[in-house]
Amino acid sequence: MNSPVPQFQIDETFQAGQRRYAVILAGGSGTRLWPLSRSSMPKQLLALNGAETLMQDTIRRVGNMVDPTRVITVTHNDYRFEVMGQLHTIHPHLADGVLAEPVGRNTLPAIAWATAKIAKKQPDALIGVFSSDHAVSDPVSFQRAWAEAERAAEAGYLALFGMKPTGPATGFGYIQAAESLALHGAESVQRVARFVEKPNLSAAQSYLKEGGYYWNGGMFVFRADHFLAMLERIQPETHAALAALTGDDSKVAPLDLYQSLPNLSIDYGLLEHADKVAVVPVDMGWDDLGSWEAIYQHRDKDEDGNMKHGEVVAVNSHNNLLWSEHGHLATFGLENIAVVQTRDATLVCPRDKVAELKPLVAKVKEKCRTLTETHMTVTRPWGSYTILEEGPYYKTKRILVNPGAKLSMQMHHHRSEHWVVIAGTARIVNGENEFFLEENQSTYIPKTHRHRLENPGKVPLQIIEIQTGPYLEEDDIVRFGDIYGRT
Amino acid sequence: MNSPVPQFQIDETFQAGQRRYAVILAGGSGTRLWPLSRSSMPKQLLALNGAETLMQDTIRRVGNMVDPTRVITVTHNDYRFEVMGQLHTIHPHLADGVLAEPVGRNTLPAIAWATAKIAKKQPDALIGVFSSDHAVSDPVSFQRAWAEAERAAEAGYLALFGMKPTGPATGFGYIQAAESLALHGAESVQRVARFVEKPNLSAAQSYLKEGGYYWNGGMFVFRADHFLAMLERIQPETHAALAALTGDDSKVAPLDLYQSLPNLSIDYGLLEHADKVAVVPVDMGWDDLGSWEAIYQHRDKDEDGNMKHGEVVAVNSHNNLLWSEHGHLATFGLENIAVVQTRDATLVCPRDKVAELKPLVAKVKEKCRTLTETHMTVTRPWGSYTILEEGPYYKTKRILVNPGAKLSMQMHHHRSEHWVVIAGTARIVNGENEFFLEENQSTYIPKTHRHRLENPGKVPLQIIEIQTGPYLEEDDIVRFGDIYGRT
Repeated sequence: MNSPVPQFQIDETFQAGQRRYAVILAGGSGTRLWPLSRSSMPKQLLALNGAETLMQDTIRRVGNMVDPTRVITVTHNDYRFEVMGQLHTIHPHLADGVLAEPVGRNTLPAIAWATAKIAKKQPDALIGVFSSDHAVSDPVSFQRAWAEAERAAEAGYLALFGMKPTGPATGFGYIQAAESLALHGAESVQRVARFVEKPNLSAAQSYLKEGGYYWNGGMFVFRADHFLAMLERIQPETHAALAALTGDDSKVAPLDLYQSLPNLSIDYGLLEHADKVAVVPVDMGWDDLGSWEAIYQHRDKDEDGNMKHGEVVAVNSHNNLLWSEHGHLATFGLENIAVVQTRDATLVCPRDKVAELKPLVAKVKEKCRTLTETHMTVTRPWGSYTILEEGPYYKTKRILVNPGAKLSMQMHHHRSEHWVVIAGTARIVNGENEFFLEENQSTYIPKTHRHRLENPGKVPLQIIEIQTGPYLEEDDIVRFGDIYGRT
Repeated sequence: MNSPVPQFQIDETFQAGQRRYAVILAGGSGTRLWPLSRSSMPKQLLALNGAETLMQDTIRRVGNMVDPTRVITVTHNDYRFEVMGQLHTIHPHLADGVLAEPVGRNTLPAIAWATAKIAKKQPDALIGVFSSDHAVSDPVSFQRAWAEAERAAEAGYLALFGMKPTGPATGFGYIQAAESLALHGAESVQRVARFVEKPNLSAAQSYLKEGGYYWNGGMFVFRADHFLAMLERIQPETHAALAALTGDDSKVAPLDLYQSLPNLSIDYGLLEHADKVAVVPVDMGWDDLGSWEAIYQHRDKDEDGNMKHGEVVAVNSHNNLLWSEHGHLATFGLENIAVVQTRDATLVCPRDKVAELKPLVAKVKEKCRTLTETHMTVTRPWGSYTILEEGPYYKTKRILVNPGAKLSMQMHHHRSEHWVVIAGTARIVNGENEFFLEENQSTYIPKTHRHRLENPGKVPLQIIEIQTGPYLEEDDIVRFGDIYGRT
């Protein structure tokens, strides 16, 4: 795995080696980062902290410690192809390790499913579980904490990462540490005294003053067999239901089996009832980037205190979050405002109110549902398409097909399509004919004709598609064959 | 002229009738309303106060008083086709009355040129001169003031509209009125005592308290022969230079002749030196809409004090100007901010600072010149085009051709074009071939092929054009024939 993350180097007397696994939780949904996050494109799949997405950042961090064949990523079926695509660009084996939930069931079932799968091959696996949508600025500290947590896991503990507080945060749960476990090579690891819900400000301030309190970042390490034993004791029904699920080898969980699992977080379902829980204090520049304000705080600002992304011109403006995904954004005399601009929607909100976006997003959804669900660019297993414009009787798209990818053999009842290749080479099936199209060549597909688009080449294929007809929705499609199993 | 403007009805003892002319000044430029106004699309050509543009509103107001054949519109040559197009939708004769300046020379040359043209046909014409970019909410009062001003003009005066102040405005020049002229049927008309530059606040407050002061809205009425005599006396060089210009019958002034005219406003060049100047006090809901704040103040607000235009969702937001030309705009907890969103640029600025946009626009221009010059939709004499997307080696446009309109016969050295008709019927010349294309039909024009696009029909023709090639700028065009004289 080609990675820019610095390598953690300590003289290890304990090496997890082939027993080290990582489970990445990538099923989260939510629209707290609307208009960038949408129900089809949650936070972990967005590039909020650099050039790659938060999930890709997570994988890079994990990638220096564990082989790609031992990384399991659990996501919702709706995000499956997007997740696989993002992982594939880092290492093809990562895409093979994607498990998809047909329905969200919170963290406990996701972790239990992945653990049971791993345990079938390696019962004493040391599994690190990581959120896919958090930021970590110091990957070496992350790696050191992981190695220390593994020693605690080997000693029978479920070992949590405890983030050293940098301020009296009220948005996170806290872990209070008790005595040291005195583990050789992991002296900082302590027993957990108690878990504390998100505190109010004065409580948070006293935790900070008192010391021994850490933010619960939802990252932990355990041994597969210890975890499953703990699950059997504390949640016997879940443990029993797992058996049927693990018996099925599919990477997409059958709906009936998965629905029978309880909707439970690992915190409420397991951690608060477990007896051997440890905390590894770590200062690794962690942030959950849970709102636009958190992103503003976490990211670099210019000399005027503006956090800028994309094409932005700010004059006499201070302490703003100015984020443009599409088009130019210009501000004058603006202070303490968050502006987030996408191809089809712009949010403008004072920074100190961006944590309360829910009623706004609900109102937007009421008015125009798609604005909260999809972007103008939609990912498909074969690549993506971007809607350039829609109008009465026509729709114009730019379609990007990845090298080697192939759309389904399909047919539409109500629309005809014109395709013009603007980059790469296409192999086309159009009715009875099969042929290649190069850049600057075109073809016309009348409605009811079977057709297929494929990129047989080594570089991305791009076409402009012009659809015409009285009905131009995505559900006017009859699939005859699809390498992604969508018929 | 089909107009929704209420008709002014008074028992006139004096009827201007066939001697009544209107000169509309539509040459103004400026970017105080950026990103909506651009150097190629100034304020008068924008729909800032309803469904039609300010210039169209002006023409509607004037239209109930004067025949379309007696309306002259003076504009800059850059805006000529846009102006003609906008006027044509109101009445074809209006488009015939467009005079174009090859270079801006302020108001005096524009008015003098139009007046000299009219005087050739009708020396005693009564000419009303009106800005094309102001708002007037009470057209009946406007019409009454015009009729009264004509009586003063007939009596030898240059008669200005004096807008009754509604507050201590510091953004306008003032006219101080002296004694009544005691004109029969126009008793309110007074002699002008003096002109006052834009005052400071305390001066403006004292004018308001004292009374007898009016805002100078730059609208006035005079008799053509009186005006020319006044010009000859006060600006003899301009008067002499006019002769050559009026000798030329072209509707586009020759550059050398026009450049020889002085760059002078009618205020400094004439009004302040004239002896017979009158003012007609009028309360007609006038506003110059000179900034986004002026537009906010002038337009209707919702119950939260938000002025909304386009697709806007505002929650817990108050007293904002929320203007979206393209895409959705959503605000939460926002107060006193102006947001103006177009297809390629968004402005966000506190309302109390929008009058000072110049440094911002200069900065934007430095970064991306076209953002201050053109919109993604560009008007042409035959219709318009909208850039949907540009990328390496391709550009996608939607092209709208008006019924009966015809693009030039042309050729490109560096780009090929694919055309798909999405609405209407096209007559096409493509190399040696000439043919019709209907909806859902397409053609391909290789580079260096002569081609022409025409709408022979009665409804607008729309095509999607996909250009491919290494150089895709507008200046790669060789024109062989053009009904708009652009070869």
